[in-house]
Amino acid sequence: MLHCSTLRFSQFHAIRTGGYLWQWKTVDRIMKGNSRDRPWIFRTYAGHSSPERSNALFRENLSKGQAGLSIAFDLPTQVGYDSDHVLAKGEVGRVGVPICHLGDMKKLFHRIPLARMNTSMTINATAPWLLALYVALAKQQSAELNQLRGTVQNDIIKEYLSRGTYMLPPEPSLRLIADVAEYCHNELPKWNPLNVCSYHLQEAGAEPVQELAYALATAIAVLDEIRLRVDPVDFPRVVGRISFFVNAGLRFITEMCKMRAFVELWDEICRQRFGVDNPRYRRFRYGVQVNSLGLTEQQPENNICRILLEMLAVTLSKKARARAVQLPAWNEALGLPRPWDQQWSLRMQQILALETDLLEYEDLFDGNSEIDRTVSQLKVQAKQELVRIDAMGGAISALEHMKQQLVESNARRIRRIESGETTVVGVNSFVATADSPLTDGIETAMHVDSEAEASQIAALRQWKRDRDPERVERALSEVHAAARNGNNIMPASVAAAEAGVTTGEWAAALKSVFGSYRAPTGVRMSPSNQTENLDDLRMAVDDASRKLGRRLKLMIGKPGLDGHSNGAEQIICRARDCGMATVYSGIRHTADEIVAEIVDEQPHLVGLSVLSGSHMRLVLEIRELMVERGLGHIPLVVGGIIPDQDKHDLLTGGVRAVYTPKDFEINQIMAELVALADLQRADTAAQV
Amino acid sequence: MLHCSTLRFSQFHAIRTGGYLWQWKTVDRIMKGNSRDRPWIFRTYAGHSSPERSNALFRENLSKGQAGLSIAFDLPTQVGYDSDHVLAKGEVGRVGVPICHLGDMKKLFHRIPLARMNTSMTINATAPWLLALYVALAKQQSAELNQLRGTVQNDIIKEYLSRGTYMLPPEPSLRLIADVAEYCHNELPKWNPLNVCSYHLQEAGAEPVQELAYALATAIAVLDEIRLRVDPVDFPRVVGRISFFVNAGLRFITEMCKMRAFVELWDEICRQRFGVDNPRYRRFRYGVQVNSLGLTEQQPENNICRILLEMLAVTLSKKARARAVQLPAWNEALGLPRPWDQQWSLRMQQILALETDLLEYEDLFDGNSEIDRTVSQLKVQAKQELVRIDAMGGAISALEHMKQQLVESNARRIRRIESGETTVVGVNSFVATADSPLTDGIETAMHVDSEAEASQIAALRQWKRDRDPERVERALSEVHAAARNGNNIMPASVAAAEAGVTTGEWAAALKSVFGSYRAPTGVRMSPSNQTENLDDLRMAVDDASRKLGRRLKLMIGKPGLDGHSNGAEQIICRARDCGMATVYSGIRHTADEIVAEIVDEQPHLVGLSVLSGSHMRLVLEIRELMVERGLGHIPLVVGGIIPDQDKHDLLTGGVRAVYTPKDFEINQIMAELVALADLQRADTAAQV
Repeated sequence: MLHCSTLRFSQFHAIRTGGYLWQWKTVDRIMKGNSRDRPWIFRTYAGHSSPERSNALFRENLSKGQAGLSIAFDLPTQVGYDSDHVLAKGEVGRVGVPICHLGDMKKLFHRIPLARMNTSMTINATAPWLLALYVALAKQQSAELNQLRGTVQNDIIKEYLSRGTYMLPPEPSLRLIADVAEYCHNELPKWNPLNVCSYHLQEAGAEPVQELAYALATAIAVLDEIRLRVDPVDFPRVVGRISFFVNAGLRFITEMCKMRAFVELWDEICRQRFGVDNPRYRRFRYGVQVNSLGLTEQQPENNICRILLEMLAVTLSKKARARAVQLPAWNEALGLPRPWDQQWSLRMQQILALETDLLEYEDLFDGNSEIDRTVSQLKVQAKQELVRIDAMGGAISALEHMKQQLVESNARRIRRIESGETTVVGVNSFVATADSPLTDGIETAMHVDSEAEASQIAALRQWKRDRDPERVERALSEVHAAARNGNNIMPASVAAAEAGVTTGEWAAALKSVFGSYRAPTGVRMSPSNQTENLDDLRMAVDDASRKLGRRLKLMIGKPGLDGHSNGAEQIICRARDCGMATVYSGIRHTADEIVAEIVDEQPHLVGLSVLSGSHMRLVLEIRELMVERGLGHIPLVVGGIIPDQDKHDLLTGGVRAVYTPKDFEINQIMAELVALADLQRADTAAQV
Repeated sequence: MLHCSTLRFSQFHAIRTGGYLWQWKTVDRIMKGNSRDRPWIFRTYAGHSSPERSNALFRENLSKGQAGLSIAFDLPTQVGYDSDHVLAKGEVGRVGVPICHLGDMKKLFHRIPLARMNTSMTINATAPWLLALYVALAKQQSAELNQLRGTVQNDIIKEYLSRGTYMLPPEPSLRLIADVAEYCHNELPKWNPLNVCSYHLQEAGAEPVQELAYALATAIAVLDEIRLRVDPVDFPRVVGRISFFVNAGLRFITEMCKMRAFVELWDEICRQRFGVDNPRYRRFRYGVQVNSLGLTEQQPENNICRILLEMLAVTLSKKARARAVQLPAWNEALGLPRPWDQQWSLRMQQILALETDLLEYEDLFDGNSEIDRTVSQLKVQAKQELVRIDAMGGAISALEHMKQQLVESNARRIRRIESGETTVVGVNSFVATADSPLTDGIETAMHVDSEAEASQIAALRQWKRDRDPERVERALSEVHAAARNGNNIMPASVAAAEAGVTTGEWAAALKSVFGSYRAPTGVRMSPSNQTENLDDLRMAVDDASRKLGRRLKLMIGKPGLDGHSNGAEQIICRARDCGMATVYSGIRHTADEIVAEIVDEQPHLVGLSVLSGSHMRLVLEIRELMVERGLGHIPLVVGGIIPDQDKHDLLTGGVRAVYTPKDFEINQIMAELVALADLQRADTAAQV
């Protein structure tokens, strides 16, 4: 059902990477006496299972000469739950390392001196907290804070728009981002406090102009906020600390032009809006994870070619070359990549950088009129969109507008694939294939350690027993006070980290002040005029609705912590366009909440969307609850990245249909849904 | 021992390609209403085992919408031997289809109307003969000759320089090329009579300037010859029929500049030297097979990335874009590609052409100063080399010069890899690797049908029994006469084809007139001054020579029809540089000839180099003969593309060492050879 064709890196790259990492010594040898540029940084995103296992992995990588760490956190840590929270069930250590408290942080960096590290943390809603834990640990290690180097992603706006690991409402979130930036400016001057991240926008359907405009609008919103807090003399240096994290898709020439447009637009914005004179502080510094959206489950070996072409977008033009690149693996659409799968992606970076002559040349596109024309078109359109967002009051006020635009451009993208206007080899063209030795009859991915969760929870409980409850209480009330009275959240957070407060407790304190928040779904609920080629389906829906006595109603639920809603959004949009009544209330619901919503809404069909890999547990739990409450007759369908064995088990467990990324024709899914609902009517009639 | 890191396409691409070929209908659908350019032609080189099996393959491909045929011939057919010749043993149907006579041709095109085909034949020494068979068959099918469309490669010069499937001395070969061109001009005006082929030059070590100069010198030599035969008014049209077949290596930016240089230089040559005014006839039309030299046996999955980067060289710049592209498979260094392996390479073309936006843009490099600078440097240097060749009397007279240049630049290439100056991922850098699901414990390549040879020979004998011997005799004497008296060889050849003459008989008639020929090996036998880093080895050789009582002598033999001599040349050069006495007399020797040479030369070591895959039979036959003649004590080593099982069998069969492309450190091989020779001395001493 979910047509996000693969998982996003942030959720599934967090695995073992031993044995084949970038070795600086080798680079230095290769560079010596060579007239080529030093390559971008080849990065591998890592962390999984438990702090201990991640530490072992990090130390193995570091011993091989890796220059820094890029840490993945699990979903509970990302959204502010401890490992023993009900929503954390099945998610602990899955897509990254769980960090509940200073003890976990200490294990994670066991025998790793923070003063000598460059640590990148992909963390957003809980960025102040993870940074506080890092600082607390650095103090324990007697490291000088002004020597700490690293990055927190700390971009919440894209979490509302696409990635889904937000926690608080927009205004306080923006304030916390600025708190981190201000604190770093004063205490951690070598730290990058914000990595504006348009990666997830493209995965959610953003076209190049949208990616440009929304990322730049985010950076502007944050800098507008920070500007109020720092000395104007220091402000250019703060601007110079802002970095970006972008996506690069298969249309690699246009994508390269997008990167050139980013460079030029950021320079203009820094100069004109923020008055930054020093060109060094206006440089568009960016890292990349290339697109997973274009990767296919069909003939998956072809993905290695797609990944390479995408990498070209951010490396070919010296003027707009990435500082760091991390790549997905060819088999992301199939499950967790193994060490060899990740090695393969790393090797392609090494080959491009070290075997070819690319880095021996200056910029290859300066002076070309095709490139100039494309870059200026992108710039003009992005500026128009930036003016529109400014007129709405900036990125925060324009959230709903931006989300709707993304959902709609994603729908256009999917319609182009369905119609064949966009070619996808192996999916809508050239589908016949020879037998593959790479996938036929062998395991194509890795599985997660199922023991990790229990031991992490046990360690958490032990931690709570061992700490001083009064000190915890006092520290939490300081966090609460800082949140309420507008003081920078960081000092109180560092103190809380030192007192033994947990991730869940820290987050709960903030939620109690700021309230929780549900981001706009981007799905317009009014009937749309996108009914082209839908006549037959609309008639079938009308017909079914007549027989059912009321409009055929589809409810989509997203249980668990998984924030990947692109597929759910597209299904609900198409159902609406087909004339169904639709119910969809966004991400991150418990099983109880979903079943309560079924009771309230009385849909004729329920679809569950789970992309985190926790589908078995979540779906069967909901199915059981439905049966308990007499809702067992409502057909339940599931969408996700679901291996064949799981699919079989779900179908025998009462699920009526299972959809995977292979099912790219949404109209086909719609037809099947109508048929299911109709059957249900007949079933009920027979029972009466 | 052979350090040609993989096989050349011409020898090993000739296998089944069913089920996944380029479908024009799909392209047309994709193109419709799109502003993108039509892509280059995605070609698959095919033909194997027997005329019947190749016909089945062709018809399958054609039924799927493939636009034309690209035919691979086996080695005996390429060099003018019938399938039952002693040198053909083990080679029949191996790297292409065997064609001995019109009956084979008829089977090959069973139910394929030649009038509606576009047929590309990779054939050189026997190009007049294969074209004669094609014409004879067209006449049987009542096709209009002036409607026949296709290409014969027909470039002998590069056969002397690298590929090795020459047959006659240079001057008569040049005459036959011109015979074909003249005949086509008069009878087959839509046929391309010459596809100047620099592909193999790069595989033999050519740097970009050499590839430019030698290919253009070849085209000039042929056109100088043809110019004497056609009406000056018609000559521009003849020039317009010349096409090229180039290589593209991993240094893809320089390679792209090379292609732009080709375009500009050819235009200048056509204008200035041949007075062609119409720009249409000056266009540099070219096809490509990308480089196999950079592919590695180690971590072979990385080759898919290398192949893609190489493809960029001939597709990125619209101004110098290839007309047709065929790609090697990732596992060429391991053996014969399977259908899936070839499909994978085809898919990467489809993805670049149809999923990315490349074809939506005009030329992306016009106006860029880096590109302009590189192109003009290449042009200046290529022109200097062309002047040098002209001064020597043209390409034919400069053969030995060109061959020596190639052997030397190949030696430089290999030294750069050995020293680490050139990075080769998995070979001299990043050699540690994770377990690979693609190669560990599974078959990675295909094996050839061993029945094909016997049935082909039986059919040949039946053909000879059924034909009219007197008519054959008369036709052969006409061929003989035409060859001797300078008449165009084509009419007599077509008549011979119709009379039932065989490939071997036709070739023998020509050899009886023109004599046979052995091309220069390019190995300077005088001691070289390339002794850097060889001090230890030179001392070891001196030491061993002292103990042996005369200079340590290495003989390298190339048995069978395989013409891939790059590896043998490099071993013999290095042995010479290490101070050994060396014996190497080029390609294509029978087992008897090689053993006779051992008797004559009394080397202390014998190395056999076989890249055609026939190593088991050829090596064991020679080993047996050596033992018979009392030479069993001379250590025998083997180099080639040799699977582990065969390696084991060779070693237990008396071979002392086996080297594959993995053994890239030639100095290491040298050290082992010295040790082997020394041991042999000890052995002999013990026997005495």
